Amino acid sequence: MWRDLAPVGRHPDTGGYRRFAWTPADADCRAWFKEQAESRGLAHELDRNGNQWAWLGDPHAGEAVVTGSHLDSVPDGGAFDGPLGVVSSFAALDELRARGAEFTRPLAIVNFGDEEGARFGLACVGSRLTAGQLSREKAYELTDADGITLPQAMERAGHDPERIGPDPERLARIGAFVELHVEQGRALDLSGDRIGIASAIWPHGRWRFDFRGEANHAGTTRLTDRRDPMLSYAETVLAARREAELAGALATFGKISVEPNGVNAIPSLVRGWLDSRAADQESLDTTVTAIEKAAREYAERHGIDLTVVRESFTPVVEFEHALRDELGRILGARTDLTAPVLGTGAGHDAGILSGSVPTAMLFVRNPTGVSHSPAEHAAEDDCVAGVLALADVLEGLACK
Amino acid sequence: MWRDLAPVGRHPDTGGYRRFAWTPADADCRAWFKEQAESRGLAHELDRNGNQWAWLGDPHAGEAVVTGSHLDSVPDGGAFDGPLGVVSSFAALDELRARGAEFTRPLAIVNFGDEEGARFGLACVGSRLTAGQLSREKAYELTDADGITLPQAMERAGHDPERIGPDPERLARIGAFVELHVEQGRALDLSGDRIGIASAIWPHGRWRFDFRGEANHAGTTRLTDRRDPMLSYAETVLAARREAELAGALATFGKISVEPNGVNAIPSLVRGWLDSRAADQESLDTTVTAIEKAAREYAERHGIDLTVVRESFTPVVEFEHALRDELGRILGARTDLTAPVLGTGAGHDAGILSGSVPTAMLFVRNPTGVSHSPAEHAAEDDCVAGVLALADVLEGLACK
Repeated sequence: MWRDLAPVGRHPDTGGYRRFAWTPADADCRAWFKEQAESRGLAHELDRNGNQWAWLGDPHAGEAVVTGSHLDSVPDGGAFDGPLGVVSSFAALDELRARGAEFTRPLAIVNFGDEEGARFGLACVGSRLTAGQLSREKAYELTDADGITLPQAMERAGHDPERIGPDPERLARIGAFVELHVEQGRALDLSGDRIGIASAIWPHGRWRFDFRGEANHAGTTRLTDRRDPMLSYAETVLAARREAELAGALATFGKISVEPNGVNAIPSLVRGWLDSRAADQESLDTTVTAIEKAAREYAERHGIDLTVVRESFTPVVEFEHALRDELGRILGARTDLTAPVLGTGAGHDAGILSGSVPTAMLFVRNPTGVSHSPAEHAAEDDCVAGVLALADVLEGLACK
Repeated sequence: MWRDLAPVGRHPDTGGYRRFAWTPADADCRAWFKEQAESRGLAHELDRNGNQWAWLGDPHAGEAVVTGSHLDSVPDGGAFDGPLGVVSSFAALDELRARGAEFTRPLAIVNFGDEEGARFGLACVGSRLTAGQLSREKAYELTDADGITLPQAMERAGHDPERIGPDPERLARIGAFVELHVEQGRALDLSGDRIGIASAIWPHGRWRFDFRGEANHAGTTRLTDRRDPMLSYAETVLAARREAELAGALATFGKISVEPNGVNAIPSLVRGWLDSRAADQESLDTTVTAIEKAAREYAERHGIDLTVVRESFTPVVEFEHALRDELGRILGARTDLTAPVLGTGAGHDAGILSGSVPTAMLFVRNPTGVSHSPAEHAAEDDCVAGVLALADVLEGLACK
């Protein structure tokens, strides 16, 4: 199962994955999902927002137990972020069938579309649309780097964009959603555990800093006559690191766009994107406010116009305590396993769904903490432990 | 004449010019040049390297006086850099004919191809090839951002790339080359003069700094676990400014490329290009050595691998003193004009040709010093003064 999926969308130079929403690589992942569903006798369904569902039992019976994750990737992403959750879901079902488990509730495995937002710049588009957290109008405005809009991309991939929108009826069928995911940090590695249970997703957001100066010839303009926005950008990058350290938060400038981006031209515009996250809202506010204040001071000193736009923001997501505790009880019955409860800085479809249905997450140990990179890894033993833990959880929830 | 050329390759959003080598906008500029030549009864000739020549008199008589510049542009460049020299050449010929001047030497107006190097990354490709300063093999390796090679681009534009190479026979016909150019600085503005004569082109070069770290998730990777190359890049940008100030040189990071360039990804690679220039070789060496040393220290501190590649380098170009002094004498005979002698940090085709033929340059005042930008400007009065000065120089050289 893993072997069939491994080569899809893998870039030969970097070894990283480029599975972007509504591209041919995405279509190949979707075909793989449908095949996995049908080979297990599950009813395959594509919802109005392009999420795939594989049903065991009657989808309309209600109180369904749903598991799954996503198959798309960031640019040059790793093999595990997303696919591990989907593959483990099918493997956990196989395990439960081998155990002879009898299901008293419907079970579904889901592949949420466009989780990473690598193409259109907004994460979790499939789950956001379904949960009504992204309006149809806003979704229609999403545009990729080539100027192709989301509805155009859907249409080219054979999906009718007219259909997209909130899907409360579908959410109402779900009794519990559990997403398994490779850990994107080293908490489990440091504590020596294979599996963890999520407590909360940190509040996080993206801010765009536009530093506008004056384009000029790099070989002839005196330093004192320059309005070079690259200098203010550089100072802001360093301020972000400093402020994040002070507040115990995270702050990263990982994306930049420069105009005209010529070797012998002082830039007219340097656009940098800040990603910032913290364990609580106050630390996040403190960090971002301090970075913006520093940036404004630098910009003023160099004669640069600065605008800061908050492009997205997600408040803290506390996963439902009852479901989280139930997972703790189920996994606590195992003598060979302790599963600590831990927070995460990463956004997930589970975070989006948690506003509408009881939701929980399981993490599988990541020995290096590296993610969103070809070097992302999880040991085979830990992946197997993840499948067994997920099987236990699904059995506990859907077979009692 | 100026009016016909003004709209070609102008971008509607920025108001800047995008006349890149061997593109349709370049072809339009070339068609304009041919028309200007033919409407004046000049013999139009396209040389093996794609430079255009308009001849008055017998090209093979030798000791020709040549003037001209280039019509291509940097990304979002201004209207004057290049075109002012070509337009002024035709206008100066018109002026000389109105004066009833009699030519004793052949005169040519030239449009050198691909001066800015905006598309293939190397400046002065047309003149370098002609002067034997760029080999055919190296030229064949030049590739644009879309992966199109220079010979492919030439072929698509209808020019036979098989023909390119050194052209000593053509250079041997030239007795003197004079290029008029808008000043790319404020020296004339500060001295209060309309016209200047070039003394030298500063030594200058381009260095590529590759900072390699480790791609990782921006939302989950602890600050202490990061190897973020953006930090070392930012520190190096600031070091470049500091070192340039100390040495009285120029240093600019105007171009950057980031991988994977995702908002929520710590970059694996930040590639920045340094452009540095100084009045003398020693100051330039001091500046670049200090920047590289600082970059290596920063890189080491953050666990970043740094490689620095010198992509191009041009030593100081001293224009021929005899020709420069003759220009001074010719313009010195005018009572309404003083023309100071000044250096420049910008490279020019005249700098390339100066290794093979006696070469000089005239600068026209730029009131803001802004260049390589849509805001680049020269006052109409100053442009007229430039045409008259060039006419005087051509008359003095070709009609005595």
